[in-house]
Amino acid sequence: MKNEVFTIINGDFIDISKMKKILQDMNTVDIAEVFDDLSKEKIIQLFRILPKNIAADVFAYVDSEQQKVIIETLTDIEIGEVMSELFVDDAVDFIEEMPASVVTRVLANVPAERREVINQLLKYPKNSVGSIMTTEFIYLKVSHKVARAFEVIRKRGIKKETIYTCYIIDENRKLVGTASIRDLLLAEQDQDITEVMDTNVIFANTMDDKETLAINFNKYDFLAMPVVDNEHRLVGIVTVDDALDVQEQEATEDIEIMAAITPSHEPYLKTSVLTLTKNRVVWLLVLMLTATLTAIIIEGFEDAIMVFPALVAFIPMLMDTGGSAGSQSAVLIIRGMALNEVRKRDILLVFWKEIRVAALCGAALVAVNFGRVMIMNQDFVLALVTSLALYATVIMAKTVGCLLPIGARLIKMDPAVMASPVITTIADVLSLIIYFNLARIIMNI
Amino acid sequence: MKNEVFTIINGDFIDISKMKKILQDMNTVDIAEVFDDLSKEKIIQLFRILPKNIAADVFAYVDSEQQKVIIETLTDIEIGEVMSELFVDDAVDFIEEMPASVVTRVLANVPAERREVINQLLKYPKNSVGSIMTTEFIYLKVSHKVARAFEVIRKRGIKKETIYTCYIIDENRKLVGTASIRDLLLAEQDQDITEVMDTNVIFANTMDDKETLAINFNKYDFLAMPVVDNEHRLVGIVTVDDALDVQEQEATEDIEIMAAITPSHEPYLKTSVLTLTKNRVVWLLVLMLTATLTAIIIEGFEDAIMVFPALVAFIPMLMDTGGSAGSQSAVLIIRGMALNEVRKRDILLVFWKEIRVAALCGAALVAVNFGRVMIMNQDFVLALVTSLALYATVIMAKTVGCLLPIGARLIKMDPAVMASPVITTIADVLSLIIYFNLARIIMNI
Repeated sequence: MKNEVFTIINGDFIDISKMKKILQDMNTVDIAEVFDDLSKEKIIQLFRILPKNIAADVFAYVDSEQQKVIIETLTDIEIGEVMSELFVDDAVDFIEEMPASVVTRVLANVPAERREVINQLLKYPKNSVGSIMTTEFIYLKVSHKVARAFEVIRKRGIKKETIYTCYIIDENRKLVGTASIRDLLLAEQDQDITEVMDTNVIFANTMDDKETLAINFNKYDFLAMPVVDNEHRLVGIVTVDDALDVQEQEATEDIEIMAAITPSHEPYLKTSVLTLTKNRVVWLLVLMLTATLTAIIIEGFEDAIMVFPALVAFIPMLMDTGGSAGSQSAVLIIRGMALNEVRKRDILLVFWKEIRVAALCGAALVAVNFGRVMIMNQDFVLALVTSLALYATVIMAKTVGCLLPIGARLIKMDPAVMASPVITTIADVLSLIIYFNLARIIMNI
Repeated sequence: MKNEVFTIINGDFIDISKMKKILQDMNTVDIAEVFDDLSKEKIIQLFRILPKNIAADVFAYVDSEQQKVIIETLTDIEIGEVMSELFVDDAVDFIEEMPASVVTRVLANVPAERREVINQLLKYPKNSVGSIMTTEFIYLKVSHKVARAFEVIRKRGIKKETIYTCYIIDENRKLVGTASIRDLLLAEQDQDITEVMDTNVIFANTMDDKETLAINFNKYDFLAMPVVDNEHRLVGIVTVDDALDVQEQEATEDIEIMAAITPSHEPYLKTSVLTLTKNRVVWLLVLMLTATLTAIIIEGFEDAIMVFPALVAFIPMLMDTGGSAGSQSAVLIIRGMALNEVRKRDILLVFWKEIRVAALCGAALVAVNFGRVMIMNQDFVLALVTSLALYATVIMAKTVGCLLPIGARLIKMDPAVMASPVITTIADVLSLIIYFNLARIIMNI
């Protein structure tokens, strides 16, 4: 159907009633995808054809550039209509991406009460639970009857994730319990809500980190989680669809940081060449400049190299193996910490584990390396020096690789920064020092 | 409360009625976590104290080693009880982790009808949608009235994710529509279900890849997704909690593969030293052996090194910068493909983007490198050779970095394999060849 819509909207003659019929049957996410490939004019045309009852839904799913194109052509009254139809959290997401001039015009056309809610949500810090919560949910007061819950569900156009649970608050708006729709269906309509509710509520605070929230969604299999302020007043809920987004974004962010890229939050193909360059070049420069250290070390051993030039040939092998061995450890620990499987207090456990893994991996590598050098270079001393250096390098790389990420967490830095590129640079420097010093001692140069 | 339970169960005297009361109020996930730190004996003791109505729930959440301890001490009748209470998908997850002897005994005690369902689910391939679906959901026939949906919800203990949507099937069990609980609440009880249902259903096939399914959950914000067989018959649903798990696992798997680790699916601290070693050493050996190539190249240029030993000092810098530049590109493309943002057909777009990013990054790096060599070595020719080699290395590394992952997808390999370690090895070899050849030509050696 996507292709059909695309063909019709780009044709010379648009059969509007046929189009409306097709659109009415489509999933709003699929409709939003059609906008991706349309020209500005066609975006506006298609949005105007959308049946009224799905226009706001589609608007929530198109990307921010297209939202801007659409909103700029709407009249003040139309803006007001779309903004009233949007779920509050989608409205906030949209406004956050708009330039100041658009924001001013949009907010001016939102009903006062809604504007206040939006302004409040816009104030939460970027990574906080408050910034992704919605204020639309079903709540009941402790004095209410079960029947009331169904009235609210029938009356309000609430998101599907919110329908499963009713939140019960006391006279001070404090969260005191939850009741599932299943409990409500099983109860008598005139029963007190307090008889049905579950008082062991797991909740988040508006200022909690949204990454922690995503982990809890996964742990408890929630569809929605209540959010309270510092006075334990219920102020919103976060729904599982947003938790899925957070989880995906956080994984992407960690992957990018681990590869020495500043995270961008934009899909690759939609990111400009300049932004891509900016996100990468700083780290490349830092890494290149720290590599100056390796140059200084090698220059210090120039005499050894002149006496025994074959030593040079093993530099890349040592560096690469050290880098890979170290980043294996670092990446496992970083991911383990991101998933809350490894904590700061596990540092000694982790260290002890990695030392043993390093000893075993190192042994296998040394055996193969020794054999290879003996076959290819037929030089026992060279085989000995490179093998000893290799073993020491693996032990050192894995130690650094596991300790640095936990160390970063201890000083409240993002552990993901301590991945391959940083570990590689450190491993390079240390492995070269080990290698050349071993060569000097054993080869007597 | 977790600590309280822990203290009581490890005490000399266990107040069972007090304990039951505490457990009744706790979240089952939290109860399951208490089992983590208990001895075998205490695990069994605590499980026997659990109130009947939550025992199966808790069983689903404890990890497989503890499930094994528990199941081995249960009588045949008790096993039958637990297995009847478990949701089918949890039962399958549990059985998949058990040794053959346990499986035989468990299946022997499951009611025949349920055993058949479990056996069927166990047959689906490991990464397929079928392997994570459940057969417990609310379905109605096209001939049913709205009221019937509420009867089913009241009668069956279905998972919370399944309550939001009813699936409507025709007389051949083919999926023809869905109806949300909100639609059902708004409709009249004696209305035909066909009047209320939505016929534009998005579904998965049992044999689809579960990674694609997770992406669709995120895209469409589903709570559950119907699964059909090749004849379009409704055979199960996948719920959002399982999609969250899949999404997290797939991200972890990609991260591990990108760091040259064989994925293990076990939390780091629960993985043995031997398994950790096995998962890493193969890749380390492969990478070390391919580094033999770099050794051969360097040996081929030994004469140049003897004439101009300062060349050696820049090898690590060139190799590291090339490796980092290449893995930046590779990692972005691999993640983009995992999230379906980059497709095979985008290969030329990606290539053109990366070439420009490489040209810009390379220019910045060369400027800094040239300045640095002029200041530190005061040698114009050396500055020129290293800078040209650096520029060529960055362009080459980013080209290889973006093309290899897409190439891997084209030949149906996992793109994640083409990350840092592989790219680094290739970049090393090529950058050394470029570097020494440039040196020979420009320095006339």
